[in-house]
Amino acid sequence: MSSPDVLPSWNEGNTKRSIVEFVRRVTAHSGPDFVAPSQRIAVFDNDGTLWGEQPMYFQLAFAVDRVKALAPQHPEWRTKEPFASLLKGDLQGALAGGERAAAEIVAMSHAGMTTEEFQRTVREWTRSAHHPKLKRRYTELVYRPMLELLRYLRANSFKTFIVTGGGVEFVRTWAEEVYGIPPEQVVGSGGKQQFEVRNGGPVLVKLPAVDFVDDKAGKPASIQRFIGRRPLAAFGNSDGDLEMLQWTAAGEGVRFVLLVHHTDAQREWAYDRDSHVGKLDKALDEAHAKGWAVANMKDDWNTIFADPPRA
Amino acid sequence: MSSPDVLPSWNEGNTKRSIVEFVRRVTAHSGPDFVAPSQRIAVFDNDGTLWGEQPMYFQLAFAVDRVKALAPQHPEWRTKEPFASLLKGDLQGALAGGERAAAEIVAMSHAGMTTEEFQRTVREWTRSAHHPKLKRRYTELVYRPMLELLRYLRANSFKTFIVTGGGVEFVRTWAEEVYGIPPEQVVGSGGKQQFEVRNGGPVLVKLPAVDFVDDKAGKPASIQRFIGRRPLAAFGNSDGDLEMLQWTAAGEGVRFVLLVHHTDAQREWAYDRDSHVGKLDKALDEAHAKGWAVANMKDDWNTIFADPPRA
Repeated sequence: MSSPDVLPSWNEGNTKRSIVEFVRRVTAHSGPDFVAPSQRIAVFDNDGTLWGEQPMYFQLAFAVDRVKALAPQHPEWRTKEPFASLLKGDLQGALAGGERAAAEIVAMSHAGMTTEEFQRTVREWTRSAHHPKLKRRYTELVYRPMLELLRYLRANSFKTFIVTGGGVEFVRTWAEEVYGIPPEQVVGSGGKQQFEVRNGGPVLVKLPAVDFVDDKAGKPASIQRFIGRRPLAAFGNSDGDLEMLQWTAAGEGVRFVLLVHHTDAQREWAYDRDSHVGKLDKALDEAHAKGWAVANMKDDWNTIFADPPRA
Repeated sequence: MSSPDVLPSWNEGNTKRSIVEFVRRVTAHSGPDFVAPSQRIAVFDNDGTLWGEQPMYFQLAFAVDRVKALAPQHPEWRTKEPFASLLKGDLQGALAGGERAAAEIVAMSHAGMTTEEFQRTVREWTRSAHHPKLKRRYTELVYRPMLELLRYLRANSFKTFIVTGGGVEFVRTWAEEVYGIPPEQVVGSGGKQQFEVRNGGPVLVKLPAVDFVDDKAGKPASIQRFIGRRPLAAFGNSDGDLEMLQWTAAGEGVRFVLLVHHTDAQREWAYDRDSHVGKLDKALDEAHAKGWAVANMKDDWNTIFADPPRA
């Protein structure tokens, strides 16, 4: 099980060695660090950890496309920010309002649909939309080393979960096909929903209001709420993941936490302390101070994206 | 797999036959109703469906015991309702304030603890407390026919979930041992939690505020939020389960919904339309109108409780 071949996209080195060593310890039946399979919970951030997040969160790209598609039904958007800028093609202007503007774009473009209509819309978008710079479908911008890691952990009886600041319904729509992670193992931010009867049948309708934000201190709270046990291993890439990593690392016995560090401007992007998207500052300091694993994309990964395309 | 022996506590009859027939249809590979194992989601209400709920929800009994234990630290409770009545042994008076009083007792008696302290407290209580009338531990008041049903469904590759109006953290503490259902497959009501650092380590602290109520229309919303797919089968016993059953029944293809009807005053309790706890009125009408399965405890179950004791 600890053969190096299971992680072929990871270069030999300390990071890969620390992963394999951790798995060996918690699965060695006769060893002092053995953990029962039912306790082998591994949690993964999504944006920037399992797939890309530049130049903007991919769900925001989806929301922007939705706003454009819905604009004819919303004449008021022509004069109302952030929609007005966005419809003029001025994305930077639209996002000048920061997180609030982005959240408004997401909420307004998702609301009113039933959960099933929303899933259909996401499915169509992931099949057709392409990343402006990398010219691939967004679901092809998942990281091959992380897909190998997910498979490797599952082969060792880990139950793999996504714990994302992104929308839970958005990620669930394609996570099973792309990551092999079923909907009930995706934890994320969510909007309020309302149970209604439409055309004689019950539906759940997405409301334009945020219910919970699965980011920062919200991540351990969501893990407790959705999963109900402390993870054995956690994987993230930004300060938004810090509390999740702290919560995991503070558990009893052996735990494993890893940060993905975006250091490869040529094959992907290089960013950390000064980035607006996926800012990695305090968590990087803490990783150095505590000896957490850091996957340096440039040095640790011989391949970045899943290839051949999987979707 | 469809041998009658797998449900020995269920008497032969329409109800048992309908369960076995449903499982046969969705698992028959060559049949028109086959459902892939990953889609075989079964959801169970807890209070009144998997274990008893009379004369009051068992979690309320736990909360009452907590209030008594904590009273010395809360002198103000001696003059403040609902605590004053409760501490004088007047439970009926304490609950005169209805749901609000009960919720206050639960919230106040659970708040301030870390999630891990809370779990320890629940564990001690389930090991020691006894039901006043039935003189057994509460976890021995689970229904044997339902344990058989859980096992039968799991043997047929169903993933079994609890979807309870009770507290998610309360039920998770013992659900794995008693029902074989792991924490991440328990959905329920929850209080707000706060991430804090105590004694140098991160903890989650329970706050005296309700975060979400997993009852009535909240049940399909919680199923969507936590599980992310529509169940193939749903089991409940009261009007609080009606929307969950409607949501399940309205799915495409074959679905199965069942109501447990408390009809056995001798071996358990007989109650439905006029009960304050576990009121079953509209859901019973709808079951009759739609032809949903109804397990009549008196006639359909030859054994009520798990025996020998399992905890």
